[in-house]
Amino acid sequence: MNISLNEAAEILKINDFYTILTHRSPDGDTIGSAYALCMALRQLGKRARVRCSDAIPSKYSYFTDLVPDDEFDEKFVVSTDIADTKLLGKNLEHYADRIQLCLDHHQTNTGFAEKTYVDASACAAAEVITQLLKLMDIDICGNIANALYTGICTDSGCFRYSNTTARTHRIAAELIDLGADYAKINRLMFETKSRGRIDLERRVMQSMRFFADGKGVIAYITEDMLEKSGVDRSDTDGIASIPKLVEGVKIAITVSEKRGEKFKISMRTSDDINAAAICEKMGGGGHKAAAGCSLGGTLEEVTDRLLMEAQRELEVKE
Amino acid sequence: MNISLNEAAEILKINDFYTILTHRSPDGDTIGSAYALCMALRQLGKRARVRCSDAIPSKYSYFTDLVPDDEFDEKFVVSTDIADTKLLGKNLEHYADRIQLCLDHHQTNTGFAEKTYVDASACAAAEVITQLLKLMDIDICGNIANALYTGICTDSGCFRYSNTTARTHRIAAELIDLGADYAKINRLMFETKSRGRIDLERRVMQSMRFFADGKGVIAYITEDMLEKSGVDRSDTDGIASIPKLVEGVKIAITVSEKRGEKFKISMRTSDDINAAAICEKMGGGGHKAAAGCSLGGTLEEVTDRLLMEAQRELEVKE
Repeated sequence: MNISLNEAAEILKINDFYTILTHRSPDGDTIGSAYALCMALRQLGKRARVRCSDAIPSKYSYFTDLVPDDEFDEKFVVSTDIADTKLLGKNLEHYADRIQLCLDHHQTNTGFAEKTYVDASACAAAEVITQLLKLMDIDICGNIANALYTGICTDSGCFRYSNTTARTHRIAAELIDLGADYAKINRLMFETKSRGRIDLERRVMQSMRFFADGKGVIAYITEDMLEKSGVDRSDTDGIASIPKLVEGVKIAITVSEKRGEKFKISMRTSDDINAAAICEKMGGGGHKAAAGCSLGGTLEEVTDRLLMEAQRELEVKE
Repeated sequence: MNISLNEAAEILKINDFYTILTHRSPDGDTIGSAYALCMALRQLGKRARVRCSDAIPSKYSYFTDLVPDDEFDEKFVVSTDIADTKLLGKNLEHYADRIQLCLDHHQTNTGFAEKTYVDASACAAAEVITQLLKLMDIDICGNIANALYTGICTDSGCFRYSNTTARTHRIAAELIDLGADYAKINRLMFETKSRGRIDLERRVMQSMRFFADGKGVIAYITEDMLEKSGVDRSDTDGIASIPKLVEGVKIAITVSEKRGEKFKISMRTSDDINAAAICEKMGGGGHKAAAGCSLGGTLEEVTDRLLMEAQRELEVKE
C-alpha cells in the first residue's frame, strides 16, 4: 500500500525496536539514508539498528562509527533505497516477506512492503529521508546532516547527473547550514582513489579500441588487469563510465572478465542510441543510456559480436 | 574604490556602450559571467560586447553563439573575474588603466579599477553576477541562466570544492528553476574529454612514482607525452590534480616540461603540508594546498631537488 510521507512520519513516531535494511553492495545513498534514519529514531528515544548483507565500506566511517550496533527483539522493519527484495542480498533475504515500511526513490520499486513511500523525483533516497526527518521534527545535527549529504552527493554524482533537481540543491543548502562537512565528504567520496584503482583505470584507458570513426569504443577489464593492479572486483565501480567520457563517442562498451563465468558487458550510450534495446538482443536489459548483458565465448568472439551489434545500431541511426 | 553591489547595479543601469573584459586563458567562470552580463545589458536596450585576449573555447558555444559581436565606440569598461590586470593578456593589456568597474570574487583582487565590487565568499564571479542581475531586475532567461550556471559549476568543481556554500546551492536551484540546462552543461563540462586527453591522463598516471611510503608522488608531463597523445598544452588543465587523487598521498608533484624553458612544477598537498612554503624555497609560491614554481636543470636534477624538499617537509611533520 502506498502511503504519504506524513503517514510514514506518523508510523515511525509510534513504533519502536527498528531494524533498518540497506541493499547489498551498499552505496552512499542506502547507507546514508539508513544511518540518518537510525540516528533520528534514537534521538526520539527509540531502539534502532542498521542491517546490511555486505560489509559497510570503511570510507563511510565518519558517520557509521557514530552509530554502534544494538541487540534487541525487533518489532518493526524498514528498508531504505531498496527497489526489489532481490537486492537484500543473501544475509538479509529472510526479511523479504516482512518489511513493514519501504522508503525509496526508484520508479521501479516492486511494492514488496506492507507500506511504501516512493518519490521517483528524488535524486536519492536520502532526499526522501531529509524531508521525512523534517516532518518528524527531528533536530538534524551535523552527524545526521553528514549521512544525508553523503546519500545525496553520491547518488547525484555530486549534483552532476540529470536526476539532480532544484530541490536537491535546496536540500543540500539546508544540510550545509545544519553543519554537513561537505568539503571533507566530497573529498572522501570523489577525490580519493586507491593506488591500484588509478592503475586499473590507466589499464582500462589503454585497452580502449575505437570503431565506427570514433563513434564507438570498446574497453576491457580482464582478470589479468585486476591482478596486475591489485584491485578487488568490488573496487571497479564506475569504471564502465570511463570510455564514455571520450568526445564523439555514442556507444561505449566495457567487457569485464570473471574466470569461469560469462563476460559481463556494460554499455553506455548517448544521443538516440538505445543501450537497453541493443543489450536486449543479447539477452540483457537496462535503461536507455546504460544497460548490460552477459555473453559466453572467447574474448575475441564476444568482441566481434558486440562490434557487430553496435555498428548495426550506429548505421541505422546515421 | 570599493562599492556595494547595489551601487554597481545603478552604475550599469545608467551607462551604455559597454565592453566587458574576461581574463586570458578564459575559463567557464570569466566567460559565463561576461556573457551573462552582456545579455542582461542588451536586454535593457544597451549596446554591449565581450572581449578576451584569447579565443573562447568552442565548448561554451551553447551560450556564446547567442551573443553576436558588436562594433561601437565603447564608453564604459567592465571586467569580470579578473583579480589583476596582468591577467588581461597581451591583446587587452591596453585596458589596464581604464577599467571603470571590476566585478570579482578573488580575495587577492588588486583594486585596479575605478570602482570595484569583490565578494570573496562567492565561489565564482558568476555567483556575484547572478545577485547583481537580480538587483538590476533583469529577466534571467534560460540563456542567461545557462551562462551563469556554467560559471558556478566550473569554478566550484560542480559543487565539490570547499568554496561551495549553502548560497551557491540556493543560486544553482534558482538558475535551474529559471531554465538552466544543467544536465547538458555538466555533461559538456565534466564528462567530455578528447581522445588525446584521455591518452595523456593515462600516460601521466603511468609516470607516477611514489616516495616516502606513498605519502608523496611525483608525475610528469613531458613534451614527448604531449606529442604522442597529440594534446595541445592548452588542454592540460587540471591534470596536475590527478596524482593527488591517490589515497594516502600528502604531497603530489607534477613536473611539466616545455622545451627551451624551465620545468614548471605544480604541487598539491593535504593535511598540514604547506605547498606554498615548499615552493617558496624554490622561488615559487601559491596557496597552502596548491602552489608552484619553476626549476632549471635536467629532469633528473629537478626530480632530485623536489624529492629532497618534499621528504624534508614530510619528515618535519612526522
